[in-house]
Amino acid sequence: MEAIYDLDAENPATAWLTEAADHARAAVRRLARTTLAARNDALLAMARAVFDKRTDILEANARDLAAFSGAAPFRDRLTLTRQHIDTMVSSLHAVAALPDPLRVLDSWTRPNGLRIERIASPIGVLGIIFESRPNVGLDAAALAVKSGNAVILRGGREARATSAALHRAIAAGLAEAGLPPAAVQMAPTPDRTFVAAMLAAEGQIDLLIPRGGRSLVERVRREARVPVLSHADGLCHTYIHRAADIAMATEVLVNAKLRRTSVCGATETLLIDSEIANASLPGILRDLADRGCVFRGDVRARALFPEMVPATEMDFWTEWQDAILSVAVVDGLEAAVSHINRYGSGHTDAILTEDETAERHFMAEVDSAVTIWNASTQFSDGGEFGFGAEIGIATGRVHARGPIGAEQLTTPRYNVIGSGQVRP
Amino acid sequence: MEAIYDLDAENPATAWLTEAADHARAAVRRLARTTLAARNDALLAMARAVFDKRTDILEANARDLAAFSGAAPFRDRLTLTRQHIDTMVSSLHAVAALPDPLRVLDSWTRPNGLRIERIASPIGVLGIIFESRPNVGLDAAALAVKSGNAVILRGGREARATSAALHRAIAAGLAEAGLPPAAVQMAPTPDRTFVAAMLAAEGQIDLLIPRGGRSLVERVRREARVPVLSHADGLCHTYIHRAADIAMATEVLVNAKLRRTSVCGATETLLIDSEIANASLPGILRDLADRGCVFRGDVRARALFPEMVPATEMDFWTEWQDAILSVAVVDGLEAAVSHINRYGSGHTDAILTEDETAERHFMAEVDSAVTIWNASTQFSDGGEFGFGAEIGIATGRVHARGPIGAEQLTTPRYNVIGSGQVRP
Repeated sequence: MEAIYDLDAENPATAWLTEAADHARAAVRRLARTTLAARNDALLAMARAVFDKRTDILEANARDLAAFSGAAPFRDRLTLTRQHIDTMVSSLHAVAALPDPLRVLDSWTRPNGLRIERIASPIGVLGIIFESRPNVGLDAAALAVKSGNAVILRGGREARATSAALHRAIAAGLAEAGLPPAAVQMAPTPDRTFVAAMLAAEGQIDLLIPRGGRSLVERVRREARVPVLSHADGLCHTYIHRAADIAMATEVLVNAKLRRTSVCGATETLLIDSEIANASLPGILRDLADRGCVFRGDVRARALFPEMVPATEMDFWTEWQDAILSVAVVDGLEAAVSHINRYGSGHTDAILTEDETAERHFMAEVDSAVTIWNASTQFSDGGEFGFGAEIGIATGRVHARGPIGAEQLTTPRYNVIGSGQVRP
Repeated sequence: MEAIYDLDAENPATAWLTEAADHARAAVRRLARTTLAARNDALLAMARAVFDKRTDILEANARDLAAFSGAAPFRDRLTLTRQHIDTMVSSLHAVAALPDPLRVLDSWTRPNGLRIERIASPIGVLGIIFESRPNVGLDAAALAVKSGNAVILRGGREARATSAALHRAIAAGLAEAGLPPAAVQMAPTPDRTFVAAMLAAEGQIDLLIPRGGRSLVERVRREARVPVLSHADGLCHTYIHRAADIAMATEVLVNAKLRRTSVCGATETLLIDSEIANASLPGILRDLADRGCVFRGDVRARALFPEMVPATEMDFWTEWQDAILSVAVVDGLEAAVSHINRYGSGHTDAILTEDETAERHFMAEVDSAVTIWNASTQFSDGGEFGFGAEIGIATGRVHARGPIGAEQLTTPRYNVIGSGQVRP
């Protein structure tokens, strides 16, 4: 039943993937006839297994950390604690508590009596390529099972022992609930040839989701022969409109920039209306500066707050992922929208204003997966949206935009119910 | 305002497309703020313009036909009559009558008070590559305008004069309604370099839809650097289950196979349960044979109805598009589903049965864009679904499956409405 990794094969990764994809396709067909209760039981059993095997998982993680020689931020991503285990368990519970994503989205009856149902259906076989964060594989598995998809995971080399331990917990949960083990399979080694095999898996993998750094995502987009759902950068903007409540705007911006500077929903650029910049910008930036933020400003911003480096155009294209903020003074809403559509990454952008007309204009014209009114851009997250977990934030323009949860792993298809109709 | 086709440029097609895509992007931003009424006005104005310019359009079509030297079926596809003009006009009216595809799909409020709205939003800039059917460009333009997208059309060489005449009608309609003319642009010549330019238009075209023969579709899928929504073959099955009403099944199958044999929703393979084959298959096939259908059957089918050519395995992979039917006797539902998932093209498959449990099983496990119960597979069509028009039937597994209407030219994105929330 398990796909065989045969080192004597000409291309062991491709041979394994071909077999794994066959098993996955059969699992999808079985999952198609499961009830929501059975899929939820599997998620709860996975949660129990993660909890029961927590010592194994943490020991495996310690082995990965012992072998790891990378920089501190990467070590942080790789590190699991008891706290992380608890978060994984509660994330599985949250996904189990969600309504069934496999539902009738719409239905109507035609004049000839044909009843047409639009049904959210599983995509099929998903491929997830991830790097050092070990929870990504578990989140992907949970969302795939919830939505009736099978998934093939290829984790990063740094997290190989941790990923394998988590996969054992997933497999135990599936087995306990009587779901096919091939619903969640993991590449047996983190050999890079698996990435190449997955990129080439036309007809075997229906959707490939890369989760990791820019070089991984770009390689997948450039080379994949299968459809890809990816998030590019998170170059998010917060725009303080002339009708903003400045106290609120200051508090929201501090959170949007500094709560966690490394997340993709962190604000990288502040835009502020020229009408209010004189009166408000110095105070807003002082608040940020007091918390350790530094600035790259355009000429008009620097005139109002001299303690900043002159911004180059390149700075407005840069996702800092650090306590650095690009600042530009703009002449109103149209200019702000143009700036965002030009320099943004289509991820998340916010307007802070008390003017609802301005807000509507902003939300209609800003071309991003998530637009936010009067709140922090850091809310752009599957958990914060109520999705239980997420496999990234999609910034493409087809299939789905924004946080990818269980519903986003479905595609509408149709059931047509007749009583003998023929077409004239 | 109009993109310039400069024959002195190094690559005139790429230069034109870059400029056209810029204009299209600006048009999308303008369309984002139009009301449904304005978009519908444009569709009705386009309908009036097609009607008013009908003489021009038919004269242009006569010029195309005079220059055409291809085979009869292709000439048929190219030919426009007054009847076709009427159909185009009523199709535009039907699209105008549809509800707004740009709507709030769902909304909910989080415990922190954030309100999240999931909004169906335009994809952006569509590219449509089509061949000889001149109505394809008009249908695509209508659906794009309805859904707030801009579209760049590249029609086939055979229909160049007809397509240009239709484009003049579209442009007149847009102008009359005050919508940007760049919402619908057409490659100024049918030079093949435009196809290459569109395939390479990363960041310029958001979704490419090829409408035409297999070699076009396969080339687009193989070479495109932009997302593609395509339909592969229409290798559709009708499965007569043991609990079928045989009189109804016969009538439905005759329609599914013979109403029009060239459409992608035509049935190509009949599967029938072994339990009822002895009693029913000869009568069913006799009815088809009397109407000119011939058969390629497996051993068991031939034993019951000798007037057929022995089927090779290749026959079950073949989309006949003719009065030819592949026939196989199967041992029940599971075998039928396995046959369809193996040999089918994921387009449209029907079960004929009075047994609702069997129907549910079939519809859950058959992996096709459209599954049909007790009706002709030829109903798999945007018009028959009530979409007013369609740009093909998608047989991929992401974004949308089945007929592509205005709703399928949108992607959900999010508006988040706060009152100063910050993330803890």
